[in-house]
Amino acid sequence: MNSTPNFLGPDFLLENEFSSRLYHEYAEGMPIIDYHNHLSPHDINSNRQFQNLTELWLDGDHYKWRAMRTNGVPEKYCTGDAPPFEKFVKWAETMPYAIRNPLYHWSHLELKNYFGINELLSPATARTIYSQCGALLLQEDFKVRGLLNKMKVEVVCTTDDPVDSLTSHQQLAQSDVSLRMLPTFRPDKVYAFSDPVAYSVYLERISAAAGIVIERYDQLLEALEKRIDFFHQQGCRVSDHGLELLPFVLNAEQTAAALFHKVRNGSSLSDEEQQSLRAAILIQLSKMYHQRGWVQQFHLGALRNNSSRKLRELGPDSGFDSIGDFPQARSMSQFFNFLDNSNQLTKTIIYNLNPADNEVFATMIGNFNDGSIAGKIQWGSGWWFLDQKDGMEKQLNTLSNLGLLSRFVGMVTDSRSFLSFPRHEYFRRILCNLIGKDMAKGELPHDLPWMGKIVQDICYHNSKNYFGF
Amino acid sequence: MNSTPNFLGPDFLLENEFSSRLYHEYAEGMPIIDYHNHLSPHDINSNRQFQNLTELWLDGDHYKWRAMRTNGVPEKYCTGDAPPFEKFVKWAETMPYAIRNPLYHWSHLELKNYFGINELLSPATARTIYSQCGALLLQEDFKVRGLLNKMKVEVVCTTDDPVDSLTSHQQLAQSDVSLRMLPTFRPDKVYAFSDPVAYSVYLERISAAAGIVIERYDQLLEALEKRIDFFHQQGCRVSDHGLELLPFVLNAEQTAAALFHKVRNGSSLSDEEQQSLRAAILIQLSKMYHQRGWVQQFHLGALRNNSSRKLRELGPDSGFDSIGDFPQARSMSQFFNFLDNSNQLTKTIIYNLNPADNEVFATMIGNFNDGSIAGKIQWGSGWWFLDQKDGMEKQLNTLSNLGLLSRFVGMVTDSRSFLSFPRHEYFRRILCNLIGKDMAKGELPHDLPWMGKIVQDICYHNSKNYFGF
Amino acid sequence: MNSTPNFLGPDFLLENEFSSRLYHEYAEGMPIIDYHNHLSPHDINSNRQFQNLTELWLDGDHYKWRAMRTNGVPEKYCTGDAPPFEKFVKWAETMPYAIRNPLYHWSHLELKNYFGINELLSPATARTIYSQCGALLLQEDFKVRGLLNKMKVEVVCTTDDPVDSLTSHQQLAQSDVSLRMLPTFRPDKVYAFSDPVAYSVYLERISAAAGIVIERYDQLLEALEKRIDFFHQQGCRVSDHGLELLPFVLNAEQTAAALFHKVRNGSSLSDEEQQSLRAAILIQLSKMYHQRGWVQQFHLGALRNNSSRKLRELGPDSGFDSIGDFPQARSMSQFFNFLDNSNQLTKTIIYNLNPADNEVFATMIGNFNDGSIAGKIQWGSGWWFLDQKDGMEKQLNTLSNLGLLSRFVGMVTDSRSFLSFPRHEYFRRILCNLIGKDMAKGELPHDLPWMGKIVQDICYHNSKNYFGF
Repeated sequence: MNSTPNFLGPDFLLENEFSSRLYHEYAEGMPIIDYHNHLSPHDINSNRQFQNLTELWLDGDHYKWRAMRTNGVPEKYCTGDAPPFEKFVKWAETMPYAIRNPLYHWSHLELKNYFGINELLSPATARTIYSQCGALLLQEDFKVRGLLNKMKVEVVCTTDDPVDSLTSHQQLAQSDVSLRMLPTFRPDKVYAFSDPVAYSVYLERISAAAGIVIERYDQLLEALEKRIDFFHQQGCRVSDHGLELLPFVLNAEQTAAALFHKVRNGSSLSDEEQQSLRAAILIQLSKMYHQRGWVQQFHLGALRNNSSRKLRELGPDSGFDSIGDFPQARSMSQFFNFLDNSNQLTKTIIYNLNPADNEVFATMIGNFNDGSIAGKIQWGSGWWFLDQKDGMEKQLNTLSNLGLLSRFVGMVTDSRSFLSFPRHEYFRRILCNLIGKDMAKGELPHDLPWMGKIVQDICYHNSKNYFGF
Repeated sequence: MNSTPNFLGPDFLLENEFSSRLYHEYAEGMPIIDYHNHLSPHDINSNRQFQNLTELWLDGDHYKWRAMRTNGVPEKYCTGDAPPFEKFVKWAETMPYAIRNPLYHWSHLELKNYFGINELLSPATARTIYSQCGALLLQEDFKVRGLLNKMKVEVVCTTDDPVDSLTSHQQLAQSDVSLRMLPTFRPDKVYAFSDPVAYSVYLERISAAAGIVIERYDQLLEALEKRIDFFHQQGCRVSDHGLELLPFVLNAEQTAAALFHKVRNGSSLSDEEQQSLRAAILIQLSKMYHQRGWVQQFHLGALRNNSSRKLRELGPDSGFDSIGDFPQARSMSQFFNFLDNSNQLTKTIIYNLNPADNEVFATMIGNFNDGSIAGKIQWGSGWWFLDQKDGMEKQLNTLSNLGLLSRFVGMVTDSRSFLSFPRHEYFRRILCNLIGKDMAKGELPHDLPWMGKIVQDICYHNSKNYFGF
Repeated sequence: MNSTPNFLGPDFLLENEFSSRLYHEYAEGMPIIDYHNHLSPHDINSNRQFQNLTELWLDGDHYKWRAMRTNGVPEKYCTGDAPPFEKFVKWAETMPYAIRNPLYHWSHLELKNYFGINELLSPATARTIYSQCGALLLQEDFKVRGLLNKMKVEVVCTTDDPVDSLTSHQQLAQSDVSLRMLPTFRPDKVYAFSDPVAYSVYLERISAAAGIVIERYDQLLEALEKRIDFFHQQGCRVSDHGLELLPFVLNAEQTAAALFHKVRNGSSLSDEEQQSLRAAILIQLSKMYHQRGWVQQFHLGALRNNSSRKLRELGPDSGFDSIGDFPQARSMSQFFNFLDNSNQLTKTIIYNLNPADNEVFATMIGNFNDGSIAGKIQWGSGWWFLDQKDGMEKQLNTLSNLGLLSRFVGMVTDSRSFLSFPRHEYFRRILCNLIGKDMAKGELPHDLPWMGKIVQDICYHNSKNYFGF
């Protein structure tokens, strides 16, 4: 069995010579534009130094917690107060049980690419690896910006609330750091009406940030536009929205003022009323984005906070979210059509969490590509649970079959972790492998330069052109 | 890399010797029965000569327009008034960006099979290819029937409105042309109630065609039956219906007369009323089909005309349709069950546009196969967006796993284009490759004659027997 | 073509040396725990002898009937009164037309593994095979328990109604037979409200079995708990439920008594009322299971009895069921969350029939894995229509990508047939092949002992530990 390729070797995921050459000659050297993630702007601006591998790698990583819990690891070692090394040992115990899960590839790629570690993580190697990484983390080039630099990260777009001051963004922009860190406008709390009291508290924060009293719907819109302008001044060119589905309600604008008045004054809205007001606000926001030439992103289909018990104990984003099965097509079509009808549909990226929706999303983008620019409407890369080999391959294949792969803006980490950038390598290897396999089978011509050009476009140039960074 | 197969070579898509032999020894020579398409009966009967490749290849082809728009090509060069060669150049510019899209395979197969062109279409080759094809199009055997003849097309079933006079069908049948062109009864406008005024205008047309005043529901049914009889006399043995989903409403017949009266007199029907009247009419039509031994086809799941702006500007079928996610199973089951209950369910083919519905459709057909004939209820071949390698493979594999592949009536183009018949070759290569790969892996016995027989059945004999042409 | 592997040879489905070694060195020898099936307890306890292959193989097998009907075989030869050998011949005629259907693999594996027959079944071999098998069936070790013994079956869990006396289970347990046969509590009729008269008849049977008058809701719950205790005494540790979807209705318990009173007294419940009462009863049952440490199973998504005509003529489970497309995520999440909220969610296995729901199910289990034990919530193996190579591979791959494959409790037959146990072999070959292929491609380390350990866990140890048999 000596002729089989080694795990994580140079041709990892590259199954033939075309694939290998596409990756090594075209993809590997391209810089990274990570146009959507959840990295901490403060950590980037302050160039945080992590104290140990647990702090850098496990704290805040709900993917790992979820795997550990499934492996029977008590909460104490996930989000709890166990000492860092004990947590790490529990993760090391889980690793060998995670074969075939993306964490198995991601984690070993991360150990290799950042720390030069080629051993497999297991209870037997946990102590050594923890020590080696711990020693490296004390070095200057293992601070946050050093980690980004190792991966050739050129631009990061963080995810920011409309009330955020964007101080870290401003400070970094004014420094001599070459990394570009741009904010993303993520107004999810603006249409989170389920708790009227919490909503009013949030409105006070927008009010303070915008310097506008918000008692009426038109005042809300005015305040949001002020915040959008402020974000724009800080270099923001992208918004992002997380929703179960993209809502559309005919004539929602007509009842928006009354519904806003109701919830602003502490009354609950029915589910239908919430959807209607949400739809109205989103349409207004979309028009504001269009006016400024922004890209709007919609992440659709998550069923969040499934365990009330764990939400109480641990808060959101702790690994208790999953994939929903909401009907997506009709209302998304109506939403985009409403904007397109007056030619106010801005550049848009839609992401689905349920792969059963892949073909709906892949064909939806074609409905609103009007020839004005190449790839105006995009179907985003495999997101969250789908950010793995199978999920990426399905997204790339379906996009190829139903649209133009060549115009795809490519990979984003959408991650909270500073170690997640090898996922760009992972994506690039998978992309090159798919194209290379088609070439090897005679399903594509053996025109390496052209295929290489398209690979480089997807890895870098398309997103650079699309966002205009 | 010399040992890799060439793009579009003789063993294109055939990955081993079993696959190759199945295709070349069994499939390749079979004639084509294209039992569902949207070809122009007038063009076939008049044996139209196309003036240039743009007219033949791009005009009316919403697949290509959609790809061009996604590539940033303005509408002028798609449906607009740009000169034919300029349009062609824009398509040639798009082609290299369409790698991995079915258009890339289809287009080059078409250039090769009809025109003997082996070069890739690109801006560099656009002028030469345009000239070469243009010269050939002046030849007698490149008129419409010559094109069909080159592909060994034996039967075509066009798609016709109940009001159509079927003159072209009659004339061709009375001529000495060996090609059989049969009409298909497609009554979609009979249950398109959303605009009562347009509906009444259409009713007048049925009324005129049938010679029956249509004021009441029973008169509508009487007129439809007369048109069905007329179609039957012209050789029609198939109907076709395009719907988001197959509607069923219990006791719909009881309210049908009143609802018809309402819409006939210009009042709008609610969505529920429309579904109810639609269900009632479809049940009555299905019974008429059953009485005559017809095959009924249902194309389900498209979300059409997503862009109102483009619908206004360009009309329907211009490339602004996509895949919907409607619940299909329950009402389809109820619809078929209602007919089956009195043993009035005729031979039926169902097509889904959303591949997430594949398994629902593949198992639905098994519910109503009652042993009366082999393959009575069929799940149709990959349709529209799914008419590509991945979509066909999924359909063939799912049908294999959940039903009997051997009884499948096989491929149809469902196309508006006279150049689309290489898709039968494409389908046949894919079919032979799947079976051949199973043989090569030892998942099927190495019984080439039996596998070859099944291949020939699927390519030709099954549809010939099923439709009784 | 001599180097291609033979159909059903020793390395059937094992595509490389890693796969082969994993199967032959690790998986092949493991005993079978078949923790969910529909075998007849009476046949097992009485050690039934089948008279011929038709009786053993075709009677009761709706998979085969369905294929035969699709092949145009009249009902007389499926469920009808044709002589056994004539039925067998019709099945033998169908077999060659069933290539690529799982029946083709299953049937030939069964002929080979039980009867040592290596020929393909066809009209030409039908008589010989029928005779050979018939002769063997007369032998002692071809009685039911001999058949199970040949396949190293250690434990079977049958499926039993709450009213069942479990006599066969008791008798077998008291005998010196080493096979363990345990009952499963399947209370589907307890929430089948559509026919109030039939429901009341059924309640009388529970009443008699439990020795409790059931006029009120609390009496129903009391009787059910008595039956659960009785099942528990007979070794039952598992329940099972067949539903279109897992219902949840907020505060269902508050209206349960009134709704039960209504249906108990012969009035019909609306669909909404049925769902509400069903949800209430299921929550109460789940709490009872939790109290006793049982595993609860939910089989979700079947659309049953699609043909009323055939239901009238042949009854349920005759091959007229199919895959539904019900929304599953939200209400399942709410159901589990309601129990989890008070930490009363017991070990649970969910099975989906529609593979479009794979990712929803695979991620749902992660929401309620709280670290208390490894693999507390499980996503069950490919069920019914999905119990084939493609369905198993998708389930294994999706589980790998979205959860921990290593903690999977593995395969069950869910079958009515004593010849269905080679499906465990089928599953094991597929499992070993997937892992072996990853090793061969360098996507997993070449650590055969560790991969072998995980294979053995999935084949045997995980279910042994999980159920605590």
